Amino acid sequence: MTRQEIITQIKKKKSFLCIGLDADIKKIPTHLLELEDPIFEFNKQIIDSTKDFCVAYKPNIAFYESIGVRGWNSLQKTLDYIPKDIFTIADAKRGDIGNTSNMYARAFFENMNFDSITVAPYMGSDSVTPFLAFKDKWAIVLALTSNKGGFDFQKIESETGKQLFEQVIETSKQWGNDENMMYVVGATRAEELLEIRAIVPDHFLLVPGVGAQGGSLRDVAKYGLNKDCGLLVNSSRGIIYAGNGVDFAVKAKKVAHKLQQEMAVILSEAVF
Amino acid sequence: MTRQEIITQIKKKKSFLCIGLDADIKKIPTHLLELEDPIFEFNKQIIDSTKDFCVAYKPNIAFYESIGVRGWNSLQKTLDYIPKDIFTIADAKRGDIGNTSNMYARAFFENMNFDSITVAPYMGSDSVTPFLAFKDKWAIVLALTSNKGGFDFQKIESETGKQLFEQVIETSKQWGNDENMMYVVGATRAEELLEIRAIVPDHFLLVPGVGAQGGSLRDVAKYGLNKDCGLLVNSSRGIIYAGNGVDFAVKAKKVAHKLQQEMAVILSEAVF
Repeated sequence: MTRQEIITQIKKKKSFLCIGLDADIKKIPTHLLELEDPIFEFNKQIIDSTKDFCVAYKPNIAFYESIGVRGWNSLQKTLDYIPKDIFTIADAKRGDIGNTSNMYARAFFENMNFDSITVAPYMGSDSVTPFLAFKDKWAIVLALTSNKGGFDFQKIESETGKQLFEQVIETSKQWGNDENMMYVVGATRAEELLEIRAIVPDHFLLVPGVGAQGGSLRDVAKYGLNKDCGLLVNSSRGIIYAGNGVDFAVKAKKVAHKLQQEMAVILSEAVF
Repeated sequence: MTRQEIITQIKKKKSFLCIGLDADIKKIPTHLLELEDPIFEFNKQIIDSTKDFCVAYKPNIAFYESIGVRGWNSLQKTLDYIPKDIFTIADAKRGDIGNTSNMYARAFFENMNFDSITVAPYMGSDSVTPFLAFKDKWAIVLALTSNKGGFDFQKIESETGKQLFEQVIETSKQWGNDENMMYVVGATRAEELLEIRAIVPDHFLLVPGVGAQGGSLRDVAKYGLNKDCGLLVNSSRGIIYAGNGVDFAVKAKKVAHKLQQEMAVILSEAVF
């Protein structure tokens, strides 16, 4: 999917919502467990009820991988079911030496036809660039994560005065461009988004953590929006586990719709 | 597998060789392609011919993941086929927020019964500690990698004068101990092994890159060995693709045996 196609979707739906499909067999409504493929059935109903309010779906690959071949089958069926005009993100945090990253790229871009994949930057250029060689596909590089451990290394200041996450963005942005790279930015302080926008004014940022991980949509928008919106804001558990009865999809729809409405106001005030 | 069991194997086999099972459908001998599961058949013959000379096998997960469900089935069959006294490493470079890393741990430790997994440190403590909660299982944390991109971030010097890879080892060693953590160290200069041994004298180090990626076994041993050996030295392509005819396993055996003999000399001179 191209950058322009993403922007077109955002304008059309008045939304920059990404929904995390973190389907956990231990958390989905129990009435689904008697079906042949409970995980796919869960995702299918979530997609049916939320697809008008979001512009991206982000399956967390660990949740599928953890149940083996059965999980990979559910993932493939889920991906095939997502409407083609919605951006898909394999939240896989992959990254290895060049020929191995190329294998991961083939797995997610060719075999499964994801539009994008999240990538860990620790191993540097040749761990990321293989993902940039696929037309209309994206590498979404981890920059700043909002988990507790994000402080361990990402904020180490170098002798040149730059924090590691800033250096990661500065260096890696030279490997691609704003049409094949995005950054994962889980800002815990809004000022951090300002710092990041100073380095990459035009790139899309994938912001996790509205909902279960905390984080205010207004603050993220205030400091993160650019002229093309430039944000995909994710919510996972807050939407997909809004309910856990037979009406779980209705409850998910309500939460997704509410977030979309907030985003519509923000976009109309600030961007389009 | 416990630390003591690994050491016992090293003493018994006079070897600290790890063999990387990077089976690529495009590179394995063509006569295998007509079989039902060519990848497993390739691995099976490699294991049969090399198991007396190595103490660990390290499947590179990307190679299996890249061909989808078929690949995961080949991987599981391969893992089940590896003799139980040989240490198994899922070379997966995983790492995510806590609940997600826990899912990856379940995937590789419970579903597939690997002894260990390689882990990327960028997301910090809660991305690694879930892997340490499983009895007799290991997290092998990326510290210094020998690929070109390894220089991009791992050698950035902080304001305290430490390089990032040193900080990663110093901080992360507090999350576990030398009975559930190892480090990936692809030293491009032997002195780096000295620096690392100063921080973690007792931990096992997984050293890639003897063979196709270059690197001298003598140098690695000189600076990396500790009183319990403390090294697993990996070779992948140099062994498994030593031949590509019907006698590929015989050729692999020769290379593995030669490396084991060099290791036996090194161990007898320096350790046991």
